[in-house]
Amino acid sequence: MCGGIGSRFWPYSRANRPKQFIDFLGTGRSLLQMSYDRILPLVAPENIIVVTNEQYAPMVAEQLPDIPDSNILLEPARRNTAPCVAWAAYHVLARDPEASLIVTPSDHLITRDREFEDSVTRGFEFVETHEALLTLGIQPTRPETGYGYIQVGEQVEPGIRKVKTFTEKPDLELAKVFVASGEFFWNSGIFLWKAATVVEAFRQLCPDVATVFDKGAGLYATDKEAKFITENFPGCMSISVDYAIMEKASNVYVEIVNFGWNDLGTWSALYDNSPKNRDANVTQRCSVLAYNSSGNIFAVNGQKLIVVSGLHDYIIADAGDVLLVCPMAEEQRIKQMVTDAKIAFGDRYQ
Amino acid sequence: MCGGIGSRFWPYSRANRPKQFIDFLGTGRSLLQMSYDRILPLVAPENIIVVTNEQYAPMVAEQLPDIPDSNILLEPARRNTAPCVAWAAYHVLARDPEASLIVTPSDHLITRDREFEDSVTRGFEFVETHEALLTLGIQPTRPETGYGYIQVGEQVEPGIRKVKTFTEKPDLELAKVFVASGEFFWNSGIFLWKAATVVEAFRQLCPDVATVFDKGAGLYATDKEAKFITENFPGCMSISVDYAIMEKASNVYVEIVNFGWNDLGTWSALYDNSPKNRDANVTQRCSVLAYNSSGNIFAVNGQKLIVVSGLHDYIIADAGDVLLVCPMAEEQRIKQMVTDAKIAFGDRYQ
Repeated sequence: MCGGIGSRFWPYSRANRPKQFIDFLGTGRSLLQMSYDRILPLVAPENIIVVTNEQYAPMVAEQLPDIPDSNILLEPARRNTAPCVAWAAYHVLARDPEASLIVTPSDHLITRDREFEDSVTRGFEFVETHEALLTLGIQPTRPETGYGYIQVGEQVEPGIRKVKTFTEKPDLELAKVFVASGEFFWNSGIFLWKAATVVEAFRQLCPDVATVFDKGAGLYATDKEAKFITENFPGCMSISVDYAIMEKASNVYVEIVNFGWNDLGTWSALYDNSPKNRDANVTQRCSVLAYNSSGNIFAVNGQKLIVVSGLHDYIIADAGDVLLVCPMAEEQRIKQMVTDAKIAFGDRYQ
Repeated sequence: MCGGIGSRFWPYSRANRPKQFIDFLGTGRSLLQMSYDRILPLVAPENIIVVTNEQYAPMVAEQLPDIPDSNILLEPARRNTAPCVAWAAYHVLARDPEASLIVTPSDHLITRDREFEDSVTRGFEFVETHEALLTLGIQPTRPETGYGYIQVGEQVEPGIRKVKTFTEKPDLELAKVFVASGEFFWNSGIFLWKAATVVEAFRQLCPDVATVFDKGAGLYATDKEAKFITENFPGCMSISVDYAIMEKASNVYVEIVNFGWNDLGTWSALYDNSPKNRDANVTQRCSVLAYNSSGNIFAVNGQKLIVVSGLHDYIIADAGDVLLVCPMAEEQRIKQMVTDAKIAFGDRYQ
């Protein structure tokens, strides 16, 4: 899944070059490329499918040259994750009625690739032998308030449990209770299932979406697919896969995993996951002269020199035509700033 | 005089495009052009001479197309103001032995052009009838610690007094005493004199410099002048015109003027002289979305959007390849930052 616009990281992440296409951690590979690298030991390139917005097609092709063009599914409209997941499932089902899928965001950080590989292998074994919707639940390491949690029930196999409930982001007190209980795990948004299982789940639990895609029977994975999608995809409701099926289904399971996961959903998450210099500043691909300044994250496109004095715990993000200087504690206001910029200047700085 | 590099305004002012060439006040004219416009009612373009560093020749020619190329005197080395002033005087003397000059920086602000014109006209009358070195002393309006002061003696003609002493920049207490006394005026660095008078002053008071230029007798204002300067100008000592002659001469006078002068020598001076929005922010040619931010100056080349939150009394200066975010109270540290940048990165960001 590669169609998001990453507006929480505006202006470093922009509508025309979102977060997943950026070398966010300065490793030389974009988050999308890191996701691809991670999945490659498990899935051959010809079976890796990227669902993205049609405007990002050239960037996907450029960053993942080994994937066939026909594996890049281009959404003509933004409809959240459920239509994205459904389309991929219908497409894969047409190519192989027995196929299993792993569905993963392309903009997350995973630090322990080997454990990821082992976890996914274990997950595939489970969904290939059960009619299950399997989500990966992350062993929590702190009372994080930025994530959704999954409460688990009985263990059905080693490491795999029934899901009792999905919960929204908790406040800090509740998050502490969750972590202490041992019953709650972070909801990673990474799913495994057989294509046939999830298509059936859509038909049962989200017929609004399934009806749209059922109309395309016989067209998936053919040269008529693109035209069908252009005409019908925009008619899908916009809804997340969690709301559409996961929270309603009875055959939902969670595999407990612990592979160094972070959704990189906020500047502070990026800050926490980045190497820091002795003043606890994080520098992204720019040169920084910092005087009396600490705890900042500098995210700048290109080889720019940043000179700061007297800044503590700020985001300094420069994207060429937009500069943001904002306390990290106010990062939740950035989405409003993007909206304000749209009101004031139209699409120019989006 | 147009050869400075304006390093106190780095990175907005850069070695390759200093302050005087920038539309510093957002009026559509650079400070150099504003200086030219101001002098034009008094001096015909063919008599306006620009002394600048040779690297700025193309910018002068572009910004002042009505000045003959032969009036742009190109210094092959930086030697402070005395060699600059001396060369111009020798050059003018060769063109017209009776000529009077006004010598003015090209990067100051003067808000009342009509009063400037009247003051300069009055000054020319004085120096054309006296063997005098005349400096313009500004009626102080506040106990400014950023300027040198001139203590005046007896009045010799209405509005013109003998100079008693030049003083360095005072501390605040002393500056208050100066202003209250009525005897002290700001040293504007604008001078009037006959070419013959100032050349004679150099010969008497700064023979090191005069000796260099006397060697060029017969070459000024000819096609041999440039070669002579290339070979001999770098041999001049580096010294200001104040030290070289003004503080030593006995025939120094001051004309008291009051035409809305500011040397724009600091970011705070620029801030004070710029229009402010309702949050007391000053914006230079960029779009700004400011949240909980006041008292800042935003100086940005180009049509960039700046979004800030939680910044008060900062300089935010962006020059494309360099960004500076610095409390205005620390502006005196900027020169050190420029030096640090040179140590770390060579000339790249100078």
